[in-house]
Amino acid sequence: MQPNGHQLIDGLLRGDRASLARAISFVENAAPSSMKILDAVYPRTGKAYRIGVTGPPGAGKSTLVSRLVGELWSEGKSIGVVAVDPSSPFTRGALLGDRVRFQEIPDDPRFFVRSMASRGSSGGLAFRTGEVCDLLDASGKDVLVIETVGVGQSELDGAAAVHTTVVVLVPESGDEVQAMKAGLMEIGDVFTVNKADRVGADRMARCVEEMLHLGAGGDGWKAPVVLLSALSGDSFPLFLDALRRHEDHIRKSGDFARLKIERGRAKIEEIVERERNREFWKRSEVECSFEEALAQLAGGKTTPYREAARMLDQFRREGK
Amino acid sequence: MQPNGHQLIDGLLRGDRASLARAISFVENAAPSSMKILDAVYPRTGKAYRIGVTGPPGAGKSTLVSRLVGELWSEGKSIGVVAVDPSSPFTRGALLGDRVRFQEIPDDPRFFVRSMASRGSSGGLAFRTGEVCDLLDASGKDVLVIETVGVGQSELDGAAAVHTTVVVLVPESGDEVQAMKAGLMEIGDVFTVNKADRVGADRMARCVEEMLHLGAGGDGWKAPVVLLSALSGDSFPLFLDALRRHEDHIRKSGDFARLKIERGRAKIEEIVERERNREFWKRSEVECSFEEALAQLAGGKTTPYREAARMLDQFRREGK
Repeated sequence: MQPNGHQLIDGLLRGDRASLARAISFVENAAPSSMKILDAVYPRTGKAYRIGVTGPPGAGKSTLVSRLVGELWSEGKSIGVVAVDPSSPFTRGALLGDRVRFQEIPDDPRFFVRSMASRGSSGGLAFRTGEVCDLLDASGKDVLVIETVGVGQSELDGAAAVHTTVVVLVPESGDEVQAMKAGLMEIGDVFTVNKADRVGADRMARCVEEMLHLGAGGDGWKAPVVLLSALSGDSFPLFLDALRRHEDHIRKSGDFARLKIERGRAKIEEIVERERNREFWKRSEVECSFEEALAQLAGGKTTPYREAARMLDQFRREGK
Repeated sequence: MQPNGHQLIDGLLRGDRASLARAISFVENAAPSSMKILDAVYPRTGKAYRIGVTGPPGAGKSTLVSRLVGELWSEGKSIGVVAVDPSSPFTRGALLGDRVRFQEIPDDPRFFVRSMASRGSSGGLAFRTGEVCDLLDASGKDVLVIETVGVGQSELDGAAAVHTTVVVLVPESGDEVQAMKAGLMEIGDVFTVNKADRVGADRMARCVEEMLHLGAGGDGWKAPVVLLSALSGDSFPLFLDALRRHEDHIRKSGDFARLKIERGRAKIEEIVERERNREFWKRSEVECSFEEALAQLAGGKTTPYREAARMLDQFRREGK
């Protein structure tokens, strides 16, 4: 931790924007101080309600999020937005990013937005997204909105788990509904068909409803499908109502608190595995064995599968 | 391995499409037999030239790949295409997928296309993509084309490493060029500005060239920037020429063979880590320690960071 680490933490817990921004940068860059900051603020996490918004590119996630944030803002809530862009550095999300999309909201400690670009693995990204959310949570935000493109399953899983997952679709997604069966239906708590004025919107909504019906979950929540226009605001209140009903459901079912434990579990697993792996490959006898494997590979005498099995055998006894 | 495992492997090595398709399914589903298949065919891998094609959504990657495949086909090459779609199950890629895009190419053992949808982590996806490429490689394909959306760095890294990375941009990407500096410039071997008839194409190409100039690599290859239209075919020969020059460079530099070793290295690391982690969490004393950590967490008495450190301390001695 830097000399002013305690000031940074105090500032963050008070909701100071500059402290929050610095702490987030430390976490994003996996700075040595980041674990200490996260550890220090952890007891203050678990209060924010976390909403994930996901869907295909061009479905209007950003517009929906902007409108939702505007609504929460006018209700007096404090809000943190994390826009995760797995296809960065390509797409506009992370670039236009932070403030441009929320010009109507004044600079205020009640609001904080951060775009995160993916460098490296999705797993790592989910982990860092969860950590950034913890910082926002500890800074006193009432609601966190995490916007992700498409790869919902991995980005909103485990370390970055949310209370409510909103899936945003558009009428044009029609052809794709079959493909969605596999993973999408299970992750959505609230479905929206955006751009409801377009041809095929009703059909799309019915189709999603039918598929939800087929795969009805056992947790007592029936995911609603809301037809709306995020741009014009048509039927937006229906969406808000669906969100609130799901929040009620989550709070009454005990899932609100359970999620903090889930995130903790994922965090322990990730840290333990990462450190164990790091320490393993640093051991001189492991380095030696690995070098030998690579030399054998280069000689064309073996396969990676056989060498992996040999290394596992060699070091397995010690761990038992 | 199933009773007919050897037949499957023999069929695959002969280039039989049904065997190849079945083996790929085993690998995608991480079936118990997949490691044995991969191990058996590994000595026959390393002959195919691997081309990665990446870029933002809508840049025209599919059109470029179709044209490239058509060209390679007419030259008499055998070709495998792997379309990786990290935003599935949402986008069209994986759905329309396999054959529709290549209708002009007859059903023939010389051609095989497979779409892979991302379920779970990008890291896992890259690993499986690499394995599917190995199967195609072992089946005797001369060229593999791996098409990915955007997340180039993670999908084309390590286990799925390619010989030539093509980055496809469009004039509209102009605003995003600044953001690309970070990661994109390093991964591209050949850059294309597609839809070259559109306003801003020249400016975009110059911009990319300038940025490449700034970050000139030390490997003796100067990445060309080709303005073209994948749809009409305008300037497509310039792109082919750039690809071929890079292939010559890679073969002369020794990087062609080196990449097989790199993939082997990544594979050993991944298998060893995965197995070690799996065995670790299964140990009864670890389960016990983990349960205790979760109970403490639920009681609000600790943090995931402290519990991870405690577990690492507890089990660290044994591994040394």
